[in-house]
Amino acid sequence: MPTRTVKTSEVDVLIIGAGPAGLMACNALSKAGVNVRIVDKRPDKVMAGQADGIQPRTMEVLQSYGLVDQLLAQANQMHIAAFYNPNPVTGAIELTDRTPDVSETSTPYPFEATLHQGAIEEIFIDSIRKSGVEVSRPIAPGSIQISEIDKDSTNPDVFPVRVRFKPDFQKLWLTRSSQKVVLNHLDTLDDDGQPDTEVVHTKYVIGADGAHSWVRKSFDIEMEGEQTDFVWGVVDMVPQTDFPDIRNKSAIHSNHGSCMIIPREDDKVRLYIQLGSNEAIDATGRVDKEQMGPEKLLDVARKSMAPYTIKEPKNVDWWTIYRIGQRVAARFSVDERVFIAGDACHTHSPKAGQGMNASMNDAHNLAWKLVQVLRGWASPLLLKTYELERRKYARDLINFDKEFAKMFSGKIKATEGEEGFSHQEFMKAFQTFGGFTSGIGICYQDSVITNACHQSHARNLIIGKRLPSQTILRAADGRPIELQHLVPSDTRFKVLVFAGDIYDSAQKARVDRLGEDLAAADGFLRRYSPEGKISTAFDVLTIASKRDIVRVADLPDLLHSHWTKVFVDHKEFNGPRGGNAYANFGIDSHAGAVVIIRPDGYVGTIAPFEHVADLNGYFAEFTKQS
Amino acid sequence: MPTRTVKTSEVDVLIIGAGPAGLMACNALSKAGVNVRIVDKRPDKVMAGQADGIQPRTMEVLQSYGLVDQLLAQANQMHIAAFYNPNPVTGAIELTDRTPDVSETSTPYPFEATLHQGAIEEIFIDSIRKSGVEVSRPIAPGSIQISEIDKDSTNPDVFPVRVRFKPDFQKLWLTRSSQKVVLNHLDTLDDDGQPDTEVVHTKYVIGADGAHSWVRKSFDIEMEGEQTDFVWGVVDMVPQTDFPDIRNKSAIHSNHGSCMIIPREDDKVRLYIQLGSNEAIDATGRVDKEQMGPEKLLDVARKSMAPYTIKEPKNVDWWTIYRIGQRVAARFSVDERVFIAGDACHTHSPKAGQGMNASMNDAHNLAWKLVQVLRGWASPLLLKTYELERRKYARDLINFDKEFAKMFSGKIKATEGEEGFSHQEFMKAFQTFGGFTSGIGICYQDSVITNACHQSHARNLIIGKRLPSQTILRAADGRPIELQHLVPSDTRFKVLVFAGDIYDSAQKARVDRLGEDLAAADGFLRRYSPEGKISTAFDVLTIASKRDIVRVADLPDLLHSHWTKVFVDHKEFNGPRGGNAYANFGIDSHAGAVVIIRPDGYVGTIAPFEHVADLNGYFAEFTKQS
Repeated sequence: MPTRTVKTSEVDVLIIGAGPAGLMACNALSKAGVNVRIVDKRPDKVMAGQADGIQPRTMEVLQSYGLVDQLLAQANQMHIAAFYNPNPVTGAIELTDRTPDVSETSTPYPFEATLHQGAIEEIFIDSIRKSGVEVSRPIAPGSIQISEIDKDSTNPDVFPVRVRFKPDFQKLWLTRSSQKVVLNHLDTLDDDGQPDTEVVHTKYVIGADGAHSWVRKSFDIEMEGEQTDFVWGVVDMVPQTDFPDIRNKSAIHSNHGSCMIIPREDDKVRLYIQLGSNEAIDATGRVDKEQMGPEKLLDVARKSMAPYTIKEPKNVDWWTIYRIGQRVAARFSVDERVFIAGDACHTHSPKAGQGMNASMNDAHNLAWKLVQVLRGWASPLLLKTYELERRKYARDLINFDKEFAKMFSGKIKATEGEEGFSHQEFMKAFQTFGGFTSGIGICYQDSVITNACHQSHARNLIIGKRLPSQTILRAADGRPIELQHLVPSDTRFKVLVFAGDIYDSAQKARVDRLGEDLAAADGFLRRYSPEGKISTAFDVLTIASKRDIVRVADLPDLLHSHWTKVFVDHKEFNGPRGGNAYANFGIDSHAGAVVIIRPDGYVGTIAPFEHVADLNGYFAEFTKQS
Repeated sequence: MPTRTVKTSEVDVLIIGAGPAGLMACNALSKAGVNVRIVDKRPDKVMAGQADGIQPRTMEVLQSYGLVDQLLAQANQMHIAAFYNPNPVTGAIELTDRTPDVSETSTPYPFEATLHQGAIEEIFIDSIRKSGVEVSRPIAPGSIQISEIDKDSTNPDVFPVRVRFKPDFQKLWLTRSSQKVVLNHLDTLDDDGQPDTEVVHTKYVIGADGAHSWVRKSFDIEMEGEQTDFVWGVVDMVPQTDFPDIRNKSAIHSNHGSCMIIPREDDKVRLYIQLGSNEAIDATGRVDKEQMGPEKLLDVARKSMAPYTIKEPKNVDWWTIYRIGQRVAARFSVDERVFIAGDACHTHSPKAGQGMNASMNDAHNLAWKLVQVLRGWASPLLLKTYELERRKYARDLINFDKEFAKMFSGKIKATEGEEGFSHQEFMKAFQTFGGFTSGIGICYQDSVITNACHQSHARNLIIGKRLPSQTILRAADGRPIELQHLVPSDTRFKVLVFAGDIYDSAQKARVDRLGEDLAAADGFLRRYSPEGKISTAFDVLTIASKRDIVRVADLPDLLHSHWTKVFVDHKEFNGPRGGNAYANFGIDSHAGAVVIIRPDGYVGTIAPFEHVADLNGYFAEFTKQS
C-alpha cells in the first residue's frame, strides 16, 4: 500500500450527519458565529420519503430561528383528525369522529405540517449557506478519539477530539456511482493530487448520524429497549380515491388491519399500512423488502379501506417496510465532548410524527449550551443538562410510543366483551397524548438551568416548559406582538419583568427597587454580561399589567433600554388578539414577577421582585463571571 | 453637429418613470409575461424622504402580488392615532384622545405601514428582476408620437407609439456627476461606440413620471384645480423627545400652528410642521427652501409641541417645504395608447398618506386591463375604464383632501363661539374619512366591468368595491384560508360560487343546474377561455354554506376542478377565525349566489343561479370570444 497523504484541520464543533438533527445544530451554531463543520456520507440530501411530520412546537422553534415561513410556504397543514371504524353489522369502515388534529391552543401553529424531509433539509442548507457553511459530502468518519489528557481542559486553544475520515470515501462513491466496482482496488485509483484522508481536531463532536450511528457504535453506547412484533408498510403517492378524508389525518381501524393516512404537500399522501407480524420478515427476523412492493402494500390497504377504493396511484414516490423498534441510547454524551442526537439516540414508530421533531429538538437543546460554553460564558457542566433533559424526554417518548403503537396496531371492539379496546378509549388516548404529539407538553426536570422554587408567582408559566403563545401590546405604539417572537433563539437569556400595576405608588416603589437590585454591580445582569454590556447576554423586557404606560420614562432605566422593550397586557386596539396575559400566565396583576426564559425558549426560573438574590444564585450555578 | 447614431427597438409597453406607480405597473406586467421596459431619468432610486405611508388597501394589493411580507419585514406600523389640543387655560397642548389609526376591520392589515419610498421601490425592483426586467437609468424621453393611422389597429405586429430618448442623457449625467460643466458641449464628448439615442416603437406608454410629468406636458394635458395658502415643512429624523406619543400618529393642534407626527421604520420619525402662509414663499409665490432649514422648522415645531421638548435630533435624513396644491389631470389617457398614472395625474397634500397609495393603485387598475388586451382576450374598450375609474377616484381624493387639509391646517376652538371647529368635529371628520385614508372605501362606478344589477343577492359585497377579508375553511382539509389570498393579481377573473346548502335536495338540484349552465358551450367560461382551458382565464371557487361537504365529488365537475377549490363557511376547527361569511357578505345561506371578482380584486358583478345569462352578457361587453 503506498503512503497516504493526510490533511489536518481544526474546528470548534464537528457535526457528523446532515439530517434534521445535524442541520438544526449546524444552523443554530453557525448563526451564533461558532466555527462549525458538518459532514455527511450521503452524496445528496434526501430526495423523497423518510420523515415528514412537523409538530406545533417544532414550528415554534423554527420560528425562533426565522425559518418557519419557509416551511409554511411549502408544507401541507393537517387541521383535522378523522377516525374510521368497522360498522358492527357490515364490517365496512365508516366515519366515527372528526376532531382537531391538535387540541393545544397555546401555540400560533395549532396544526401539524407535513413536508418531505429533503425539503426541510433544504431550508436549513439555505440558512447555513448564509453563514458561509456548506455540507461536506460524501464524507464518512473512520476513527474518533477523545484525549484523556485534554478532555477537561477549558483552554480555548485545545482541541481534545480527533476524528479521522475514511480515506478515499469520496472517490469510492464517485466510482460506484459510475457503475464501476472497485471496492477492493481503492489504492489503484488515479492520483488527483487531493490528500487521501483528513484528520479533524475539534472541541466537540455531534453524532447526528442516524439509527445506525457510527459515532454511537464507536463508543459502544448500547441501545436499550426492544423490537416489537408490529410490522408496517409505508407508501408515498398521489392517490386516486373516493375516501372522503384523504386530505385529513385519518386513523382507520378495520377488521383487516389498521391504516393511517397522512396528507402531504401538493397532492401527495402517505399511507401507513399494518402488515401481519410475519409478513415481509425473513428467517432472521429482519424486514425483507423483496417480499413486498407498493402494489402489494396497496392491496392490503384496499382491504382495510373498503368500501372506499384506491385506484392505481399516479405516482409512487417512495415506499418502505419497517418493524417497530423502541429503543433509547444508554448515554447521549461521552465526557461532554462527544454528543449523539436524533435517531442516533432513539428509535420508535413513525406514525405519531415524532421522529424528526425529537431529533431537531435534541439539537435545539444542545446548541445554545455549546455556544455558551465555547464563548466562555458558561461552565462546561451546563453540557451535562443535555443528556439529563433529552434522555428523559426520549424515554417518555418511547413509553408514549408503546401505548400509541399498541392501540394503533390493535383492534377496536365492536361490542362489549370482545377483545380489544373501544373507540372512546382510543380517542381518549389520542387526546391525552396531544401534549406529546404537539411537542408542547414537554417539561424539563429540575437542574442547574431549571429551578422551580418560586413557581407559585407565575402559576401557569410552568418552569421547564416552553413559553406559551400570547399577544401583548407594545407600549409606545400599541402594536400587537406575539410574545414568542420576543424570545428568538439568539443564545441570550430573556428577563421578562412583569411589572404589575406601575401606576400604583406602592407598586411603583417596588418596581424602582427591583430596578436597583437588577442594576447592582453584583447582580446577575452586570456580573455575567461580557464587557459590562447587558444586551450581549441578556434581553430585558418589561410587561406592565395596565394600558397607558406610554410614558416608559417612568420606569427604571434598565427596564426600558429602548422604546421597543416595554409592553402592556391589553387586547389589540382594532382586533380580537391579546389581553389577559397576567391571568393566562397566573401572575398577580398587581404584584408582578420576574421570569427567566432560557435561550431555547423554556422557562428557566421565576422570582418575586424581592428575590433577585435567587436569580443571582440561579445564574451563579452555571455561568462564569465576566 | 455631427451625424447621430440611432438605435431602434420594439416593446409592448414602455413605462416612463420608475417611482411607485411605474414600478407597480412594471411588476404587474412583467409577472404576467408582458414584454415591458421601464426607464427613469434619475440615476438611482430614492434614497430618503418622499412618500412613506402605505394604506391597508395597498397592503392587500401588495399581498395579491406576493410582496406584502417584504414590506412588513421592514416597515413601521401605526396602530394608534393620538390627538393633542391646547389646554383652554394654560394653552399648552395635552392629550385629548387616542383612537385606532384605522377603524376599518374588514382588512387583514388594520393599520398603516410607513417605510421610506426607496425601500418600497427596492421591493419592486427585486421582484421585476426575477422576471428579468431592470430599470434603465438615467434615460429621459425627448419626443413622443402616436400614429394616427395605426392607433386603432389591433394587429399584434403594429407598434403605434414612437418614443425617442434624449440623446446623450446618460453621458451628460455621468459628466455632471464628475463635476464637469459640459451642458453646451454635448457633441464634443468622446465617442464611446454607443448609439447617441434610441427610438422605441411601442404599443402602449405609461407616463408615471411624477408631478412635473413630461408625458402629460407632451400631450398638453392640463392640471385642473388650484394652489392653497397652506405651507408646510417636513423633517425626517431620529428625535430625542419626551413627547409621549412619538411612536404613534399624532395630530397636534396648538395655538402656534399644527403639527403631525408620523413614526417611521427603526427609530425614525417624520414631522409635518405648519408654516405661515407667506413663510418660505418667494415673490413669485413659489416655495423658497433657501429661507428655511431643518433647525428653523424644528423651532416652529417646538412652539406647537410645548410643554414637550425636542432636543437637537441625532440625524436629519431629509427635509422639505411645500405649498399644498390640489389638482387633477383633465385626461388620464390619450387614445388609450398613452396613459398617465400616479403624481402625473393628481397632486394633493401628503399628510393623509394618500399619494403613493393612489399612485400604486392607478397602476394596479391599469395593468391587468393592458394584459387582457395585449393577450387578445379583451377588447381595447376595456382600457377606457382606466380613466373612468381612476379619474373619478382622483377627484374624490382632492375633495377629501380639501376638507382634510383645511381642518388640519385650521384651529381647534377652545370654547363655543370662537372661530374654528371643535375637537369633536375634527374627530368625526377623521373617522368619516377613514374609508378614504384606508383605501378600502373606494368604489368604482358602473361600467362594462362593474355591473351592479343583482347587488341584492350579496348585499355586502358591494359591486365596485374590493372583496373584503374573510376566513373560510377548505372543505377537504379544514384549513383556514383568507379569502383574499384566493384572489391574487394573476390577471384571471375569479368566479366565486356561493353554493348555499347543498345538502338540501332542492338546492342541490339548483347547484347541478348552475353547473350545467356554467358548462354550456356558449357560456362565458367556455366562450372566453383561450383554447378551451378554463383555468387559463378563470378560477372557479365554490363556497358552501354548511360544513361537512368533504364529499366534493357531489358537486358538478366545474365546481370542484381540484380538491383545493372547494370551501365551507365555518369557524376554524381549533381557533377563533372564520365563520359567518354568508352573513357578512349578505348572501342567503340557502340560495347562494355567483360573484365575479375582477383580476384586481374588485367585485365585478353578481348573479343569482338562474341568471348565468347575465354573467354571459357581462363578459360579452368587453371580452373577445376565443
